[in-house]
Amino acid sequence: MGNCCAYLGPQKNTYVRISLPAVCFVWQIAMIVLFGVFIRYDEESDTHWVEHKRTHNITSDIENDFYFRYPSFQDVHVMIFVGFGFLMTFLKRYSFGGVGFNFLIAAFGLQWALVMQGWFHHLDHDTGKIYIGIESLINADFCCAGSLIAYGALLGKVSPVQLMVVTLFGVTLFAVEEYIILTLLHCRDSGGSMVIHAFGGYYGLAISWVLYRPNLHQSKQLIGSVYHSDVFAMIGTLFLWMFWPSFNSAITDHGDGQHRTAINTYLALASSVLTTVALSSLSQKKGKLDMVHIQNATLAGGVAMGTCAEFMVTPYGSLIIGFCCGIISTFGYLFITPCLEKYLKLQDTCGIHNLHAMPGMLGGFVGAIVAAAASESVYGKEGLINTFDFVGDYATRGVGTQGGYQAAGTCVAIAFGLVGGAIVGFILKMPIWGDPADDNCYDDEVYWEVPEDEETIPPVLEYNNHMIHKHQDIAESNFSVEQS
Amino acid sequence: MGNCCAYLGPQKNTYVRISLPAVCFVWQIAMIVLFGVFIRYDEESDTHWVEHKRTHNITSDIENDFYFRYPSFQDVHVMIFVGFGFLMTFLKRYSFGGVGFNFLIAAFGLQWALVMQGWFHHLDHDTGKIYIGIESLINADFCCAGSLIAYGALLGKVSPVQLMVVTLFGVTLFAVEEYIILTLLHCRDSGGSMVIHAFGGYYGLAISWVLYRPNLHQSKQLIGSVYHSDVFAMIGTLFLWMFWPSFNSAITDHGDGQHRTAINTYLALASSVLTTVALSSLSQKKGKLDMVHIQNATLAGGVAMGTCAEFMVTPYGSLIIGFCCGIISTFGYLFITPCLEKYLKLQDTCGIHNLHAMPGMLGGFVGAIVAAAASESVYGKEGLINTFDFVGDYATRGVGTQGGYQAAGTCVAIAFGLVGGAIVGFILKMPIWGDPADDNCYDDEVYWEVPEDEETIPPVLEYNNHMIHKHQDIAESNFSVEQS
Amino acid sequence: MGNCCAYLGPQKNTYVRISLPAVCFVWQIAMIVLFGVFIRYDEESDTHWVEHKRTHNITSDIENDFYFRYPSFQDVHVMIFVGFGFLMTFLKRYSFGGVGFNFLIAAFGLQWALVMQGWFHHLDHDTGKIYIGIESLINADFCCAGSLIAYGALLGKVSPVQLMVVTLFGVTLFAVEEYIILTLLHCRDSGGSMVIHAFGGYYGLAISWVLYRPNLHQSKQLIGSVYHSDVFAMIGTLFLWMFWPSFNSAITDHGDGQHRTAINTYLALASSVLTTVALSSLSQKKGKLDMVHIQNATLAGGVAMGTCAEFMVTPYGSLIIGFCCGIISTFGYLFITPCLEKYLKLQDTCGIHNLHAMPGMLGGFVGAIVAAAASESVYGKEGLINTFDFVGDYATRGVGTQGGYQAAGTCVAIAFGLVGGAIVGFILKMPIWGDPADDNCYDDEVYWEVPEDEETIPPVLEYNNHMIHKHQDIAESNFSVEQS
Repeated sequence: MGNCCAYLGPQKNTYVRISLPAVCFVWQIAMIVLFGVFIRYDEESDTHWVEHKRTHNITSDIENDFYFRYPSFQDVHVMIFVGFGFLMTFLKRYSFGGVGFNFLIAAFGLQWALVMQGWFHHLDHDTGKIYIGIESLINADFCCAGSLIAYGALLGKVSPVQLMVVTLFGVTLFAVEEYIILTLLHCRDSGGSMVIHAFGGYYGLAISWVLYRPNLHQSKQLIGSVYHSDVFAMIGTLFLWMFWPSFNSAITDHGDGQHRTAINTYLALASSVLTTVALSSLSQKKGKLDMVHIQNATLAGGVAMGTCAEFMVTPYGSLIIGFCCGIISTFGYLFITPCLEKYLKLQDTCGIHNLHAMPGMLGGFVGAIVAAAASESVYGKEGLINTFDFVGDYATRGVGTQGGYQAAGTCVAIAFGLVGGAIVGFILKMPIWGDPADDNCYDDEVYWEVPEDEETIPPVLEYNNHMIHKHQDIAESNFSVEQS
Repeated sequence: MGNCCAYLGPQKNTYVRISLPAVCFVWQIAMIVLFGVFIRYDEESDTHWVEHKRTHNITSDIENDFYFRYPSFQDVHVMIFVGFGFLMTFLKRYSFGGVGFNFLIAAFGLQWALVMQGWFHHLDHDTGKIYIGIESLINADFCCAGSLIAYGALLGKVSPVQLMVVTLFGVTLFAVEEYIILTLLHCRDSGGSMVIHAFGGYYGLAISWVLYRPNLHQSKQLIGSVYHSDVFAMIGTLFLWMFWPSFNSAITDHGDGQHRTAINTYLALASSVLTTVALSSLSQKKGKLDMVHIQNATLAGGVAMGTCAEFMVTPYGSLIIGFCCGIISTFGYLFITPCLEKYLKLQDTCGIHNLHAMPGMLGGFVGAIVAAAASESVYGKEGLINTFDFVGDYATRGVGTQGGYQAAGTCVAIAFGLVGGAIVGFILKMPIWGDPADDNCYDDEVYWEVPEDEETIPPVLEYNNHMIHKHQDIAESNFSVEQS
Repeated sequence: MGNCCAYLGPQKNTYVRISLPAVCFVWQIAMIVLFGVFIRYDEESDTHWVEHKRTHNITSDIENDFYFRYPSFQDVHVMIFVGFGFLMTFLKRYSFGGVGFNFLIAAFGLQWALVMQGWFHHLDHDTGKIYIGIESLINADFCCAGSLIAYGALLGKVSPVQLMVVTLFGVTLFAVEEYIILTLLHCRDSGGSMVIHAFGGYYGLAISWVLYRPNLHQSKQLIGSVYHSDVFAMIGTLFLWMFWPSFNSAITDHGDGQHRTAINTYLALASSVLTTVALSSLSQKKGKLDMVHIQNATLAGGVAMGTCAEFMVTPYGSLIIGFCCGIISTFGYLFITPCLEKYLKLQDTCGIHNLHAMPGMLGGFVGAIVAAAASESVYGKEGLINTFDFVGDYATRGVGTQGGYQAAGTCVAIAFGLVGGAIVGFILKMPIWGDPADDNCYDDEVYWEVPEDEETIPPVLEYNNHMIHKHQDIAESNFSVEQS
């Protein structure tokens, strides 16, 4: 496959033998230096925990935050590497790039995220150190997610070096917007509808818009999937779908916070599946289902619950949100993505606009509404304070105000995504990054040693034998054809 | 593949463009309404938890049931969606339907299960509400499992609309039989040998028996697997196998109950693998292993431990149960399934009789025996009471009586499966459901947009090029053949 | 594929219809007997837990070790069965054997491990019983890992019966060396750099060295991968990579021990990915990445952290270790494996020397250095005692001495691997085990019922039809070619 289209047309220079190793080595060494200067264990992961326990009257090791968060962390970890990675294996000849580059940039991004988020959120100004624990690792994975979402729009059209740049800036922008939204505006966004999905989605779309390829049709024979690549993609879809309750609840409050968030997300996701199937079938002349919708739109409910899942949104409220997002996201795949390409000159390989950008934005505004509608009668006095963290400087903030700030936060996330993405896009236009030519996009041959599928040759021999022994008739016709 | 056999014979009307969306939309809206009326958060997932904690002298958030059950819940969730889903991808051209429809009906089933199980088990008669928490989600997943098992017998022969009907009734019947068995008969069945596997198995078999297709042989070219579809199925097998200890222990008693259940299930499963391999090899003239056995019979130990795993069945007892079930289940695949089809006119695509129905029934009776054999000397006074929940009205029930009730429960489960399945089967015989004709069963083309595997064309070109440059000799012979 | 090469050359007797079932049945029955005699539930998984709690003033069930270790156990379980299993599916026609035999030997190995490790570590000399709990299951999985690693060197060249023998001796040797290293030498090795990876690696290499096949090139057409088999292998890689923090932290001290170990492993693994990618790209003329490196060398950081991850190695220290091991491991795949085959006559199918043996050995020595460098100022008085378990007879042992013992432990592990492997290798040379001939290694046809991939035939028909209707031109050229 790759081979043959490697012959068409002139090649751009996709030689990354210098640039890719250089970027990986230099940036990894930089990480080591930064970690050496800044990163230390927090008191719960340090051997002084035994004294910490005594001084804080903690009776049991089970009170260590590790046991509250580690199972959720591992689920999130699976979503980042298997979920996002395999969701992007759907292309017939870009599965290596989908799962492999996802692996590379996530592994870099989480290190850079620990430093960036640390500077903004956990820097101890006395010691000048950043103290990390299990929650930091979860946040680092979240931070990568923003850049992985962006990768979805660029899949098959960029070089690994460009992806490293996308991640470097993506993580940086993420840390800043997150600081503004969560700290300055004091928004709640445990599952990141705003900070992760809206930001990541618009970040990727803006980059893809700047990198528009007018002649991408030259690779059109590689844009589709094959039967088994669609099954591989379902691995990604299902692990994302199953573990999304952990994603949204991973860093919410201990106890009822994590408990409620998981329930709400679970329900919204279930509801998305039915409306996605319904719309996918409706949209097709023969009522057949489209794997693209099943692989993606079924997840929209989880994205949209990112902000409000920890609130008292009620179980039926969660179902309603999932219901709507399944429809909206599938609708996006059917109509918006083609329009974006046609009118906005925006090529969005995985349709992240429909799965992340739009549902994320909606989730942000839904969160604002739910926050504004919160009341002591529903939450209880202490419950309201805990849920929205109305303590310290914010003790006097009302739910209405909170709702306003939540809405503002959503806008900040989108703005950061669009502006940051545009800038990064122009950086990536420089001719030094080894990106593929229009006629060999979506092709692993460009950056990977791809095995020759000899497997497919012997059957042809077999087939010829078959012809001799079994299908003499077919052989005849077949032969006569070739004679004619 | 699909294409070519789509030409054979006349087509039934498999048009689901109206019915499938209608069912999905209407039922999802019904769920929203029912949730709005009945479903609320329980006190552990509600923001009032903070007061609840104080009033109940709970010292730490870690005491929230969420932390006892969430890791097991996520494992169960993986079994339902990836385990069952991928186990059904083994067919060469029905992988989309296997994993995709499993996804659809589980997502619907768990919502309906929360309502139905809630009505029977958790309805607060003062408020008229159902209060849900993490344990409810686990039970909802369990409840789906019954219908997913039934799907195994119907795989490739029914339409998605029919599957939704199977799930609607399956979940309803499940909730009723579960109420009778666990509440009225006060049986113990934490892993659901009776309520999940025996019921689900016989439910599916009864449906399949009613829907017998005399001319199914017309699709025989699609019944088998291909190399990679068997590897996909191993993903399902392994996740089911690995997480079965979580499945059986997910809702057992805190502490020793979950601990012991996990150990027993782990051991029984390990033992099943060896006897399955042994019998699979023995049964084959050349001693070769059959993937069908490895994919399915290795799991029989987990099914059979569903009831007794929480009892003091002893580690070696678990090994013995696994030992026997590996043999029985493999034996079933070798001899019983063919007989069922030949003499009972029962077509069981995945052999659920061997993996679920029979081991489930056995598990129920083994549970009865183990219960009847329980003694204070082994369990300890309190241990015995805790394990069998001999409190309240049941404080005076003896272990012998308990054993009797356990056996009765098994029969109830089977009866519900057979009768309910037969009724549902007749409902599904109505010609309105869009099921496929005998000659295009097991074919994703019917309900899915299937990509054309162009991938397989270029190698032929390559092959021809190979012929020119490399295999001139082959080319010659090959050519002369076509000449002859 | 298999078919055609099944015709080449003379066959060895690969008939395992007697031996394989015999081994499985006899050994499983032996396990049942041994479990009956020795294995019992420990007090945390026994129904007497309720009394145990009272007598030990344990206030809550959440203090049961189950809740400290079960999530990590399940992650380890996934690594053993899906991780190792799918990592070995990369060969184009040995995926069944890779994942299937891994499944078989792990299921046997963990039972045998519970007995062997029990004898050495948990035998109660008053009652003569072995009491097992969740930690025993984790250790049993670890113990299997040694033999599964060895399988990596033998992949495709041995029979399932030989693998059972490899596992029987592997688990036995493991239990002995583990006893010497952890108990007699009182080393710390929570993640098993020494006892699992160094031992398992050298054990497999020694066996493979004894079983050298001079004419293995006769199977060379099957040694490579195909596109989708490489994607399957990535499933194994990613689950190993993601869950490695659980692997290393599964049996470390409650609280800070598990917490710190997870963080360190997470960081080392991330760092390995970047250096692996860098070196893989550098090593290739066109800078393309090699899937073999991405699938394996990215994991080297986790292996090397097996010993020191629980120490205060510092976050940047972890990054440095991962950095080096990614380079060393990739370097091994590029240069050492070919040399081993050429000069040492050692055929290492999966390159376990580079992924396990070498990084494991390094991890052992790094652990020794880190231990020797430990100080009260860093660890705190109690922290130092807890971390190195300086209690009882070891209360007076200094960190320097500890470092020496750690280094000695590494040598013991390697010695056991090499000597034990050589002996087992000679046992396996007996002509009774049904191993494949040189010309049908790496072929599932030998031990599995492999479906014929008819899937690949119809496209050829289609293709011919295409030629008639669409690609007349291609047909022409194509035909003329065949004329020439």
